[in-house]
Amino acid sequence: MKNNQFAIAPADHQQRVTELQTIHLLHPDEEQQLSPNQLWVKLLTRIHIADHTPALDHEWLNSLLATPDQSITDWLNQNLPLTNRVFYLVALQLLQFEPAIDFAIDDPLTGMEKIQLPMEHHEHWTTANVIDAFYLLLNTRTKLGQNLLDRLTSQGMLTWTYALPANQKPIYFNGKPIASFDPTRFIREVVYVETDMDTDYDGKADLVKVEIMRPADSNDGLKVPAAFTASPYNQGTNDKWGEEITHNVNIPLTHKDPHDQSPAEPDFPMTFTKQTVNGESQTAAESFSTTPAYTLNTYLSVRGYAIVYASGIGTKDSDGLQTCGSPEQTDSMKAVVEWLHGDRRAFTDRTSGIAIRADWCNGNVGMTGRSYLGTLATAVATTGVAGLKAIVSEAAISNWYDYYRENGLVMAPGGFQGEDADVLAAETFSRTKSPADYRRIEATNNRYMKGLAAAEDRTTGNYNGFWAHRNYLPNVDNIKCSVMMVHGLNDWNVKPVNVKNLYDALSGMPNTSKLILHQGQHIYINAFRSLDFSEMINLWFANKLWELDNHADELLPDVLVQDNVHPETWTTYTNWSGNQSTTLNLTNNSLTTENATASGRVKFNDHQDDATYQKWCQKPAEWSQALLNDFDGHFSAHFVSTPLKKDWLLRGTPTLKVRVASSADHGLLSARLVDRGSAKRLTVSPVILAKDGLELAYHFGKDDLREFQLQKETTDAKVISYGHINLQNRRDASSVDDLTAGKFVDVELPLQPIFHTLSAGHQLELILFATDYEMTLRGNEAISYQIDPQNCTLVLPNN
Amino acid sequence: MKNNQFAIAPADHQQRVTELQTIHLLHPDEEQQLSPNQLWVKLLTRIHIADHTPALDHEWLNSLLATPDQSITDWLNQNLPLTNRVFYLVALQLLQFEPAIDFAIDDPLTGMEKIQLPMEHHEHWTTANVIDAFYLLLNTRTKLGQNLLDRLTSQGMLTWTYALPANQKPIYFNGKPIASFDPTRFIREVVYVETDMDTDYDGKADLVKVEIMRPADSNDGLKVPAAFTASPYNQGTNDKWGEEITHNVNIPLTHKDPHDQSPAEPDFPMTFTKQTVNGESQTAAESFSTTPAYTLNTYLSVRGYAIVYASGIGTKDSDGLQTCGSPEQTDSMKAVVEWLHGDRRAFTDRTSGIAIRADWCNGNVGMTGRSYLGTLATAVATTGVAGLKAIVSEAAISNWYDYYRENGLVMAPGGFQGEDADVLAAETFSRTKSPADYRRIEATNNRYMKGLAAAEDRTTGNYNGFWAHRNYLPNVDNIKCSVMMVHGLNDWNVKPVNVKNLYDALSGMPNTSKLILHQGQHIYINAFRSLDFSEMINLWFANKLWELDNHADELLPDVLVQDNVHPETWTTYTNWSGNQSTTLNLTNNSLTTENATASGRVKFNDHQDDATYQKWCQKPAEWSQALLNDFDGHFSAHFVSTPLKKDWLLRGTPTLKVRVASSADHGLLSARLVDRGSAKRLTVSPVILAKDGLELAYHFGKDDLREFQLQKETTDAKVISYGHINLQNRRDASSVDDLTAGKFVDVELPLQPIFHTLSAGHQLELILFATDYEMTLRGNEAISYQIDPQNCTLVLPNN
Repeated sequence: MKNNQFAIAPADHQQRVTELQTIHLLHPDEEQQLSPNQLWVKLLTRIHIADHTPALDHEWLNSLLATPDQSITDWLNQNLPLTNRVFYLVALQLLQFEPAIDFAIDDPLTGMEKIQLPMEHHEHWTTANVIDAFYLLLNTRTKLGQNLLDRLTSQGMLTWTYALPANQKPIYFNGKPIASFDPTRFIREVVYVETDMDTDYDGKADLVKVEIMRPADSNDGLKVPAAFTASPYNQGTNDKWGEEITHNVNIPLTHKDPHDQSPAEPDFPMTFTKQTVNGESQTAAESFSTTPAYTLNTYLSVRGYAIVYASGIGTKDSDGLQTCGSPEQTDSMKAVVEWLHGDRRAFTDRTSGIAIRADWCNGNVGMTGRSYLGTLATAVATTGVAGLKAIVSEAAISNWYDYYRENGLVMAPGGFQGEDADVLAAETFSRTKSPADYRRIEATNNRYMKGLAAAEDRTTGNYNGFWAHRNYLPNVDNIKCSVMMVHGLNDWNVKPVNVKNLYDALSGMPNTSKLILHQGQHIYINAFRSLDFSEMINLWFANKLWELDNHADELLPDVLVQDNVHPETWTTYTNWSGNQSTTLNLTNNSLTTENATASGRVKFNDHQDDATYQKWCQKPAEWSQALLNDFDGHFSAHFVSTPLKKDWLLRGTPTLKVRVASSADHGLLSARLVDRGSAKRLTVSPVILAKDGLELAYHFGKDDLREFQLQKETTDAKVISYGHINLQNRRDASSVDDLTAGKFVDVELPLQPIFHTLSAGHQLELILFATDYEMTLRGNEAISYQIDPQNCTLVLPNN
Repeated sequence: MKNNQFAIAPADHQQRVTELQTIHLLHPDEEQQLSPNQLWVKLLTRIHIADHTPALDHEWLNSLLATPDQSITDWLNQNLPLTNRVFYLVALQLLQFEPAIDFAIDDPLTGMEKIQLPMEHHEHWTTANVIDAFYLLLNTRTKLGQNLLDRLTSQGMLTWTYALPANQKPIYFNGKPIASFDPTRFIREVVYVETDMDTDYDGKADLVKVEIMRPADSNDGLKVPAAFTASPYNQGTNDKWGEEITHNVNIPLTHKDPHDQSPAEPDFPMTFTKQTVNGESQTAAESFSTTPAYTLNTYLSVRGYAIVYASGIGTKDSDGLQTCGSPEQTDSMKAVVEWLHGDRRAFTDRTSGIAIRADWCNGNVGMTGRSYLGTLATAVATTGVAGLKAIVSEAAISNWYDYYRENGLVMAPGGFQGEDADVLAAETFSRTKSPADYRRIEATNNRYMKGLAAAEDRTTGNYNGFWAHRNYLPNVDNIKCSVMMVHGLNDWNVKPVNVKNLYDALSGMPNTSKLILHQGQHIYINAFRSLDFSEMINLWFANKLWELDNHADELLPDVLVQDNVHPETWTTYTNWSGNQSTTLNLTNNSLTTENATASGRVKFNDHQDDATYQKWCQKPAEWSQALLNDFDGHFSAHFVSTPLKKDWLLRGTPTLKVRVASSADHGLLSARLVDRGSAKRLTVSPVILAKDGLELAYHFGKDDLREFQLQKETTDAKVISYGHINLQNRRDASSVDDLTAGKFVDVELPLQPIFHTLSAGHQLELILFATDYEMTLRGNEAISYQIDPQNCTLVLPNN
């Protein structure tokens, strides 16, 4: 195991003493009165909270090794001075590392180094040294994916703090609030925020349901910040309906007329009435028991953050329709932030007109969540709404065109062929879950959905007004909050171009922004063993939302990237792209930095026999494998570099220029970039190391501890980037160019951005082809394509 | 979805009224004072506990459909009498079923029937009818895998009962205790039970650590029963050590000498000292925060059962060594039952001599758990220990020889090639987790492990004294408690012969015993959507442990079997085996009831080319597939019946008689019985319908809701039974017969017991072969085998 911690804040001796006293581990005057060994034993027994008698303390000290052959009790009998080896052999055991498995019992210091655990060495240990080293140890991560203090907290060491008066909270330790808020006393309440729109055409302003879970202390005068997750999924989903209206993709691409126009999107009423206020209540009238939770929020909840969930318009118990990423959906979530900040009204229910304020909130809001949830965090941030101080935008869409379309093509999110904006709208329209409410809105929604499906325009695949409404990038300069972006370099669902464009747009702005790129697909990373992500967020939110001056921005790396070769390896950078770029030329079969030698045209045909076609439509992963093995070029063209002499780090957006001809008056070009070379690569998904093995608090919330590991078997190749373009969208996605059968055209295609180390001995491979069975339409037309390699290049940004 | 409920107890009107009043849903005199519609609305609003105002109640009633087009509020305005259709359309919504997906909105009664939900029909609904039907509805399972009352409980409806005085508990509803015990006030304590043995040779009686979680009410005079799980895994496992000593199985079988003797098992000291008692304490000195939990126990805990875990000898914080199923291990768990029953002493720690009693316990103990855990429940039951009233023996070993050996062969549990008793002992010897304790016991344990490994005798594979010590079947007639057996018909780890032998041995005894056979492998079934298993256990334990006269034994089926063809189908029987049997004869290629026609000998060779051999050793599943396809008989002989004219239910133990010759002086015969026919079969493992979707109590414990579903694609065959025998163990597993190369011998081989419907059109197939790459030694010797079909039969018990 390798430990990677970024949220340990530097602290001087006095701060360590004060904080250890605050959590009752160190008592006043002990530094002066106790010898190093005496204090060390005191601290050891105090963190073993299961024991209540000297006999049990003795047993416990007798179960830990101080030297390879002596327990702590045995060793203490010799009255020897504390040493680095003794302190850290015990430390390793406290951190749950096991002799022989994780470290060599006779060399704990090398073990600490190998696992990347922080140490403080002393030739002669003083009592002050023990205090300092123990403080650092409490901030050090255990083998179980949480720092030692969090582990002790989850065992109940800090439950006494629950009873402290509200004005003594939060309690900070090493720059982060500790879990001092009693989850059994959490207030769970529901309010209905009023918006400024009427998306269900009923003449009344849409109300949006909000679920709040906050500490009881926030009723006793403590103003707390809110961690708000905007999740259209939280009130339920219509999976079967979504399946039913998923689009047939086994149809051919067609020639586009440059004059074709997309149908306009349905618009919403400009006039509607607002609720009459009939009074105000200090307490909510509705509660809830549970709502689907992001475990990061659960971790934060006991640390004093109010946790807020809203599903927005078109969901159960709210008004409105599902518009899939439209400005109205954004505004319905922005309204929640405004209410939390005191700038908008909410009601205790949908009819009585009794208003209710978020008096318990300190006005600072952070937004969290992945995928659609992170997307809406990004979208709300681009409104510049007051009160929103920070967002963690995970696997988020920055432009819905980059989710459902690409360069004039209909494009599926990986794994969801045939999905589109209308399908997602249907899936998330959870007003179905209140059957009588649905009966009343059904006709209206069906009418709207018809308009939505037309406006998304699968016929042309062009960028149009519908997609422009759902592109947050032009509004990035409105963002006032700090932004932490988290994205998987292997996310084929929300593709990396989404985060790269947001990152680039933010890079010139004064807001602090942070970027974490991991080796996962479309996943959360808060339960990884190798990275202290939850602590990083707690540190960052302490700064942004609790307004604690903890230097979070300086401590957290600007760009943090998980290595694709070595497991559990996270490296910091100052930016995504490298300073250089390399231009590779294409020849018949090669990718080379040398000038292209004279090279004939390369041809391939997109048509498959019917059995193969049917099989690949059923199992696109088999097509993907066949593509990698299609060296003879039946339906693709392969260009391969010579084996690399040394590791090569590629970082940024590769750009491909291709001269290509289609045998028809329409066509597409697809590209995959491949890391070719036999290696044991990281697992595609993180492996569960311990189901429910991560306790988020004392008897409150668990998560599965996870980590990427090396696969047991070698693989020969891994796709690292890809791109697709309609040959009729050579200028841009909104402009249609003409195309003549057999005539060569030049296209420029930016591929998905990468951050990838090609290992020495590996080869870089470019595959050009047409139909992508996993993502594009699959018409199986007998179209042949010609590539003119001499007029093709691949530009790779790199170190 | 199909609902299967067995734990609904019949209740007359008066009982229903009383119980509904007890849980505050019905108020006194309402039956007399309210109209049916009025009471119905009262009940509906009372179970919607999130609402605290009339406005919200109104909203809620307005969100539910009373007719296909009217909400409840709309419908009430018409002053129509309540009807079956209205009551059950609303009921379906309360049970979380969705119109269009789960039932037709205009025909709720057919929907109720199809889903197998209980109904009470009335032509004219009276107020009493509403009470009765609503009571039944509360006991009816929702789509989310729990009955409606449990769902409401998990939403917090019954938290007010937490504060009731201890003497008013438990509260029974429909024959089962409800969740009226506050989990946030659970007492978690540790004691050390003293045994009558010294398995770690230190001259002192072994102490065994016990972890107890019990309601605070049990400190206030309420005596509660204990649900005890004996789990050698609970203090941690040594997975790497286990891997390292896993045996090499790629070695040939060898000729056995009839005079070979197995080495004797190490024995333990007869004399040792016991702890001096220095006093007694009313309270424990040690606590714990969490221990790995069986979610069934978590479900039971809030219903008043004390939950007890012990890991026994040879585990962290206990004394002793790991003996893998020996009488000593059983006794260490029996000692816990004795302490709970008041017949043995325990201490607050391992050294001070302060005794502590289980005064809070009513003396009744039930044991729960799967696999090793269920095995130890069975083992303890065979001691006839006082206080043990019931065990749920899930996927349990009844005889360790049937786990690691078979008919004179070394045999792996499915998926664990090379595992043996010594490997499991090493894996569970968690005293390693206290490094200093391990350092002190390491040499002793290594010495003992050497003896254990010799005594298990992988050389002969014979039944010997070692295995006799670990066979619980001869002691079944000591069992005094009730036994519920649960086993997967596809459990290749703990094979079904284990439960069949226990079931058969119990069948003549006065104890009540129950049997549940499911279509899973080695799994728990308490989070299945289609079966009310947890409620069944709660009903049964209420009777056995709380001593409630609830007719559990009559209500629960004697034998309950999950169907292998139709999903979510559970059928009751009175016994496992059918009343008939069919004898099938073998010809060259056929299985037939007709007299065997003259048939030549069938030959196959066990040897594979090296590449194939290596591949199959690496991936035994590929061998298994190749075996099914080896119709040409390269390394197996296939005998196939004609397609069945109608469904055929096979139930019991198939017995195979074979005349066989080996070309060597040693050899083995393996058999697989195959359901051959193209079908969409049930998934091998249950599909997770909702991760953490099952709430076990209000904010206390979750489980993944699961169910077997039909696979999306058809498969051609499924192995339904199998068996293996060493040709030198023709009489029995402990007696060695001689074997001459090339000479025919007769063997009789009972196959794994089955309960399987062969569908019409399918064929029954018998495959005979030698090496089983998944379970036997794999020597790849060039041995050819001959079968004489005319002297072979297969006897199948069936309906």
